[in-house]
Amino acid sequence: MEEIKLFAPATIANVSCGFDVLGLCLDTVGDEMTIRKTTTKGVTISKIIGQPLPLDPAKNVAGVAALALLKQLDINTGFDIQIIKNIKPGSGIGSSAASAAGAVFGINKLLGTPFSIHELIEFAMEGEKLASGTAHADNVAPALLGGFTLVRSYDPLDIIKINTPKELYATVIHPQIEIKTSDARSVLKQKISLKETVIQLGNLGGLISGLYTEDYDLISRSLHDEIVEPYRSILIPEFDTVREVAKKVGALGTGISGSGPSVFALSKGKEIAKTVGEAMSKVYQNTTIDFDVHVSKINSTGVKII
Amino acid sequence: MEEIKLFAPATIANVSCGFDVLGLCLDTVGDEMTIRKTTTKGVTISKIIGQPLPLDPAKNVAGVAALALLKQLDINTGFDIQIIKNIKPGSGIGSSAASAAGAVFGINKLLGTPFSIHELIEFAMEGEKLASGTAHADNVAPALLGGFTLVRSYDPLDIIKINTPKELYATVIHPQIEIKTSDARSVLKQKISLKETVIQLGNLGGLISGLYTEDYDLISRSLHDEIVEPYRSILIPEFDTVREVAKKVGALGTGISGSGPSVFALSKGKEIAKTVGEAMSKVYQNTTIDFDVHVSKINSTGVKII
Repeated sequence: MEEIKLFAPATIANVSCGFDVLGLCLDTVGDEMTIRKTTTKGVTISKIIGQPLPLDPAKNVAGVAALALLKQLDINTGFDIQIIKNIKPGSGIGSSAASAAGAVFGINKLLGTPFSIHELIEFAMEGEKLASGTAHADNVAPALLGGFTLVRSYDPLDIIKINTPKELYATVIHPQIEIKTSDARSVLKQKISLKETVIQLGNLGGLISGLYTEDYDLISRSLHDEIVEPYRSILIPEFDTVREVAKKVGALGTGISGSGPSVFALSKGKEIAKTVGEAMSKVYQNTTIDFDVHVSKINSTGVKII
Repeated sequence: MEEIKLFAPATIANVSCGFDVLGLCLDTVGDEMTIRKTTTKGVTISKIIGQPLPLDPAKNVAGVAALALLKQLDINTGFDIQIIKNIKPGSGIGSSAASAAGAVFGINKLLGTPFSIHELIEFAMEGEKLASGTAHADNVAPALLGGFTLVRSYDPLDIIKINTPKELYATVIHPQIEIKTSDARSVLKQKISLKETVIQLGNLGGLISGLYTEDYDLISRSLHDEIVEPYRSILIPEFDTVREVAKKVGALGTGISGSGPSVFALSKGKEIAKTVGEAMSKVYQNTTIDFDVHVSKINSTGVKII
């Protein structure tokens, strides 16, 4: 195989009560990537369509992730990457993670899969480090593994794939305002009360139980974030209204996608997820804020060959 | 039915990373209770063998729990309770919870089960309130439901039963020193860093995943308490040594049972659990501290009729 075409999915990190540990993978939102073997050692990025991103591999998340992988091998082959960028950087649905995950997945396939998916996660995390300063895994893990993932630990890295209930759909609305990851971090409280921690533990435990037992009511009751949403949501215009209308038309629950500004809802079944998208859209239609809305099944496989 | 004989099990609250939310039920450690219908309204406690506990129902956890249940009914029957108290109060394995859970379970049976198990948990919590000042559920829930339980929320009360892996055994060692629940609370930090909270969330998520998927390695990796054990363990002599020897002979992990002083270990299979008990015992044999040791399968049903 000399060339591979991929769908590199968008992802939702945090998932309400799972701050910094949970993530999930979307199915119909993502980038297209073409990766081709070349005869020159190293990585080139010959084309990026859709976003003004750097072609220099050392300054591009896909390039950095690819280089982290190739550093582990003694080979003379190189790789060229082309990206059709459908995910907007800064949207909070894992734009950098999609590119990093797609690059390492594709190169690994073209090389006959010398690395495990868990090793690929570590390479892709190097791309995240370039993008945000932190080698976090809560977007690259679901992008590569699919479904819901838990970062049990960073030291050592320990990623667990959680069961995905069959009828679970995500709706994501992206109000096109800019929130820098650094700003989204700075509004967080650095000290949490023991009581708030216990509430968060209860809800995370409930959500994970609900995912395994496919108990949609329990998932719904557990989608409550005690420690981050109250502060970060202030940065997102109309957040409270979006949450209210989504719940009103049947969403199981809502949350901030990653560090925002995208807001997600989870629903049982595609029809409710679409209705939720329409209700959320109406909120921003009454403002001057542009927005995108996506409705997607949870993608249980991650990056796909197309 | 005029009389019922019960086994009221001991329980382990917190279970390492599940501070204030997780609990599990033991199978071979517990009290025996006999509950009998009487013709006089109200509750009497005619006998307690094994411990010097008050017979006045208003001052006894079993009595208070029973009275909370009867308050909901308009009946002329009363109940007499007799207890063979095998669980030592102050041991940290749910002595008060066993009595409260047994009392409400037995009376409910004699009345033809007018209440659900979840309602019984609320009555039993009134007993806990008498014992410790707080109506906590992390011992009474596993005592009544069996297996592993999660307190997802107190407001409203929402208790989830978690899957119990078939080969999971608990070893509990009770060094006979006194730690008051109030002291065990006062050593806790009231503010937790965001970083510590995230580590705890990762481990709780990992433990719950491991329980559902019966992944003993994952359970083992997740049995780490970031927020309570470092402080509370200081109150338990030889804690670090007990933990080390347990792990050395094959325990999946260890933790403080409830607010201590009992220390528990979880193991895969009865043989390892017994070896862990012997290793833990040797630690206290080299001291002047008296101790009890228990090895038990996880009890998946809770209070039992005998």
